[in-house]
Amino acid sequence: MSNIDSHKLYIKNLSFINNIKTIAIIGPSKKRDYFFLKNHATYFKGPIYAVHPTVEEIPNFEKKNIFHSVSEIPGEVDYAFIAVPAFKILNIIDECVEKKVKLVTVFTSEFSDSGTEEGTILEKELLRRAQNKVRILGPNGMGLFYPKLGIAWRPEFPTTPGNIGFIAQSGGVCNIAIYGASALGINFSKVFSFGNGADLDFVDLLYFLSNDPETDIILCYIEGIKEGRINDLKEVLKQNKKPIIALKGGQSKTGSKAVKTHTASISGDDRLWKALFKQFNIIEVESLEQLLNTARLIDFYRIFELKNLAVFSISGGYGVILVDLLEKENIKVPSFTPEIQNLLSSKLYLPGTSSNNPLDLAAQFFFENTVYEIIDIALTDKKIDGLILDMPSFYLKPVFKSMDRQSFESNIIESLCLGHKHNKPLIPIIQRSNRPEERERISKKLIERRVPVFGDPLEVIPLLPKISNYKKRYIY
Amino acid sequence: MSNIDSHKLYIKNLSFINNIKTIAIIGPSKKRDYFFLKNHATYFKGPIYAVHPTVEEIPNFEKKNIFHSVSEIPGEVDYAFIAVPAFKILNIIDECVEKKVKLVTVFTSEFSDSGTEEGTILEKELLRRAQNKVRILGPNGMGLFYPKLGIAWRPEFPTTPGNIGFIAQSGGVCNIAIYGASALGINFSKVFSFGNGADLDFVDLLYFLSNDPETDIILCYIEGIKEGRINDLKEVLKQNKKPIIALKGGQSKTGSKAVKTHTASISGDDRLWKALFKQFNIIEVESLEQLLNTARLIDFYRIFELKNLAVFSISGGYGVILVDLLEKENIKVPSFTPEIQNLLSSKLYLPGTSSNNPLDLAAQFFFENTVYEIIDIALTDKKIDGLILDMPSFYLKPVFKSMDRQSFESNIIESLCLGHKHNKPLIPIIQRSNRPEERERISKKLIERRVPVFGDPLEVIPLLPKISNYKKRYIY
Repeated sequence: MSNIDSHKLYIKNLSFINNIKTIAIIGPSKKRDYFFLKNHATYFKGPIYAVHPTVEEIPNFEKKNIFHSVSEIPGEVDYAFIAVPAFKILNIIDECVEKKVKLVTVFTSEFSDSGTEEGTILEKELLRRAQNKVRILGPNGMGLFYPKLGIAWRPEFPTTPGNIGFIAQSGGVCNIAIYGASALGINFSKVFSFGNGADLDFVDLLYFLSNDPETDIILCYIEGIKEGRINDLKEVLKQNKKPIIALKGGQSKTGSKAVKTHTASISGDDRLWKALFKQFNIIEVESLEQLLNTARLIDFYRIFELKNLAVFSISGGYGVILVDLLEKENIKVPSFTPEIQNLLSSKLYLPGTSSNNPLDLAAQFFFENTVYEIIDIALTDKKIDGLILDMPSFYLKPVFKSMDRQSFESNIIESLCLGHKHNKPLIPIIQRSNRPEERERISKKLIERRVPVFGDPLEVIPLLPKISNYKKRYIY
Repeated sequence: MSNIDSHKLYIKNLSFINNIKTIAIIGPSKKRDYFFLKNHATYFKGPIYAVHPTVEEIPNFEKKNIFHSVSEIPGEVDYAFIAVPAFKILNIIDECVEKKVKLVTVFTSEFSDSGTEEGTILEKELLRRAQNKVRILGPNGMGLFYPKLGIAWRPEFPTTPGNIGFIAQSGGVCNIAIYGASALGINFSKVFSFGNGADLDFVDLLYFLSNDPETDIILCYIEGIKEGRINDLKEVLKQNKKPIIALKGGQSKTGSKAVKTHTASISGDDRLWKALFKQFNIIEVESLEQLLNTARLIDFYRIFELKNLAVFSISGGYGVILVDLLEKENIKVPSFTPEIQNLLSSKLYLPGTSSNNPLDLAAQFFFENTVYEIIDIALTDKKIDGLILDMPSFYLKPVFKSMDRQSFESNIIESLCLGHKHNKPLIPIIQRSNRPEERERISKKLIERRVPVFGDPLEVIPLLPKISNYKKRYIY
């Protein structure tokens, strides 16, 4: 441990992570098709070694990179992923200390998470034998996902490096987040699954991401921290200048019990966490989906404050529903300023349309350029901070023969990108109705243009005041 | 109007709707590719006539079925869809009365919805000229969707008749519901879009569906009703024995203003509606998506009461999140009974798994039959009323070579159908992550087996207590 500053902040140094050059996979399993070895080897560019006492050959893996022990590996090993039976772990960690491995992930479970005395003793002994010389993610963790360096523990993890960091104990939650994020169009700088947190814990990893030049937004799923770390956590949060979005697991009675089984964490008093989130302006969400979607909104549109929103609907009724949901969250849907209102009135000429806010386009949606012009004008209004719009996926197919599918679709896409032109968030809800292929194709194109597509108003509207409140409270 | 019973309930008789045999489309538009004519003609089996003063030919439409006026049509006309400019509407309605048309939809807008005095006067005159002899859906409505008879106002409306009725003023909301329902695997008996409700209103249509033998569940999107109809509404609700799920539009200040622009409705005091919903055990929801998903849960699993739920997760952390969300909604995740717990313990042998509730399968998910056996045992527990489970879509691809994709997938599907075997709701959440095609394919198969797949816990968990409360309060 090193004393980082005058606040007596105890944080383990992890700055070497951005320079990992060699990897060893300890305990590759033939029975599991060498799962973790194959996954790490897929994208990692530097040398990668397999360590197993008896294995001599591994399909599609160079024989010269297979060793019977860590000490046999020539040169340095920066990072090791360990998946051996629990009873072998102490010898392996001794070897890693000897080899001066900087960081290991202990995937093996049944330590303190088992709830047995033996497991807890073994975990303590593991930590003691590491001697603060090798840093540990785990045990019972998946370790490090670092797309920039090609470090990935599961197949088909996205390869695009991003600016979002994620910390969770649970590897399963990390998996869902990593695959989910790639579908949403956001990318991670680093993801840490630190399991039982015997050595590296939430506070260490948060400090690292808070100071990591590759990370702009920090996400975390928190099961709990040790009581002795609360003051360190507060100090890290005090120094932090990046948006942190947090999901706290174990808030309910049964949830808190389950947390104990899961990672042997003490989830702690919920009021304490709520107070901490408030004090340090942490955005709290209720689900993993909300965690990712809040990050996406911030990543695509930066931090925004939405007081007054324009609503753009193709169905007057759906517009009313959106207004109700927005006003429940204290977001106003005000009248446009007179000049803007006049301009909009001149553009909306079809019977059944309405140029007031909420805008009702009705069938004029299908008329060339209408959508683009109306959105462009509405976003010009100084009073208006952004626009939300619903576009059922059945509208994505032109209904009149006279319409050209190509220009119709590209026109919709250009229209939905107008938020970026005006530097105001534009949030499209494309309902998941009867055209999954069209929806998928158009959503992908929009996501590439950094427009966050949602499928249900309740997926996004509750997130908007969370981001506004963050901005209001931000004091740097 | 007819006095139906001793409570002086004034309801317009609509029983003829189930026997519509002929249709006329009045005012087919060449400019719009004869949109409404083509749509109604696609699936309707009986005679369908086009009425236009000058049109002589319509592509792909029999010339002998084109007439210059309603009176020229030989034989009876049961239903007419009218899309003519507003200034022509009075003559057309006179003709319809003369012809003894039973029901018309007036699609034309700019009546009371325009907010002008002229519009309001025209609407009153339309009603007067109908003389209670022809019933009107509209003006400013899309009318009737009745898949059993093939009556449909838009292209590609689903053709499977169902048992769910839906009433809304807004045609756009109906469109979203109809296309959305088909993607969710539920089907409509009838959908009514009654626009401004000049003649047929919410009370009439609710009474009809409440007594319609083809309808088991009633959905409604309500913008408002006339003050004079409140007592009739109460009487209809008093007599009703079917589950009603309602979304009230215009609850907010701006929403209520928008409702007035949209269909000239007075949305009324929100507290009055809340009291009504409570008094008559109406399930209230917040969004159109919740409306459809609540109907789906009831349609697939009937009305259920969920006090104690089993949680089945592949990630311990995600299981914790589910437990927290459930307990917030007062659904308990209790321990299993000792016998069941013993059985489960004997089946879950891999390190990192947990046989307590919430169940954590971890990688044992990939072992043949594990999923089926565990769910089967958990649902046998008498204490347990149902099961919720998360299955990220990346797990839908087997990861080990030794696994057979076919049997893996069919095994998952059989496992997720186990709710029906035990007559307890089983609710799978298949996250929308990186495998949209696999997810789509498996979801479709599950929906065919009447298993409601969701993509996000917040999409479904808030709906569960709504259904439980309905069952608790149901008094028949």
